[in-house]
Amino acid sequence: MTVATNVVWHDSKVTKESRCAHKAQRPCIVWFTGFSGSGKSTIANAVEHRLAELKQHTYLLDGDNVRHGLNKDLGFTDEDRIENIRRIGEMSKLFVDAGLIVVTAFISPFRAERQLVRDLVESGEFVEVYMSTPLQTCEERDPKGLYKKARSGEIKNFTGIDSEYEPPENPEVTLDTSTMSVEECVNQVISYLEGKQIL
Amino acid sequence: MTVATNVVWHDSKVTKESRCAHKAQRPCIVWFTGFSGSGKSTIANAVEHRLAELKQHTYLLDGDNVRHGLNKDLGFTDEDRIENIRRIGEMSKLFVDAGLIVVTAFISPFRAERQLVRDLVESGEFVEVYMSTPLQTCEERDPKGLYKKARSGEIKNFTGIDSEYEPPENPEVTLDTSTMSVEECVNQVISYLEGKQIL
Repeated sequence: MTVATNVVWHDSKVTKESRCAHKAQRPCIVWFTGFSGSGKSTIANAVEHRLAELKQHTYLLDGDNVRHGLNKDLGFTDEDRIENIRRIGEMSKLFVDAGLIVVTAFISPFRAERQLVRDLVESGEFVEVYMSTPLQTCEERDPKGLYKKARSGEIKNFTGIDSEYEPPENPEVTLDTSTMSVEECVNQVISYLEGKQIL
Repeated sequence: MTVATNVVWHDSKVTKESRCAHKAQRPCIVWFTGFSGSGKSTIANAVEHRLAELKQHTYLLDGDNVRHGLNKDLGFTDEDRIENIRRIGEMSKLFVDAGLIVVTAFISPFRAERQLVRDLVESGEFVEVYMSTPLQTCEERDPKGLYKKARSGEIKNFTGIDSEYEPPENPEVTLDTSTMSVEECVNQVISYLEGKQIL
């Protein structure tokens, strides 16, 4: 590739608008919230896959790539959990600014912290997906054995056991994986995004 | 857009490789380092603009979008400055994982912290651009009036005045804006990326 030597020098910055135009997509945050075992990661991954098939440029933020990297200095006290979500929100904002659809999968139990993230981006860019799967089902699944440890006292401050979960009051999408299939859940999220002309 | 109801369920994740294939580009970090006033932001912006013209999907991280958001809890002690760069490095890694070319403009005075970021990503993905503009020129420019404040003692721990700058030993690109034009600087960075088949 040759470099043009007569390129016009632009003083303006590359903007969110120009990045979105280049990508021909509308960025947003698809924020999954719910108990451990409610299906957040499974559905978030499935949604990301479907978006990729639809040629959307996506990125998934979850415990795997955030807790071991950016937020590895944080523990599980209320203070650290709030800082955890704050940083994820700020990072999601930058990904939205970069023009991507960000999919996040974190318990994010407190209303105030989810509101903080909603307020970071423009109106309509925060899509809250509430996994309403009943706690009993989540505990029966116990995919990581965490509920058992929480019940025995081995883990403290576990959401649903000895730490509160505040359900969203007006989530954009509500999904219950105890009664809905993965495909039904994905379809509902995609339909919402289509209805809002994000897709 | 209609939703396929017979979509095959993929258990695999959307990977860095699939995102890069979708975007037809190779991600990397173009990391500018140098004194305040050395031209980091100017050249970083100009490089991002050129990359956008070349249809590359980029994102610029600088003080404007990081210091007021993700890192607004950090000050300017050595400890906070190291944490500042650590977080920027971890975030850059996620942007690279998302398939983007990340351009960063931070003084990042310490070799160890730049090495930490280099080690976060794969070999060849960290492109260190050393702005070797002499301190005297930077201080004469003093675009934000910070050198004056540092000389008068109003600002403490200012790089080049009462805080050390450790120049890179083997930077991928070296630019001196006291002798090179913006266009020459941009061309040199683009040529490097082309030579490494990143472009």
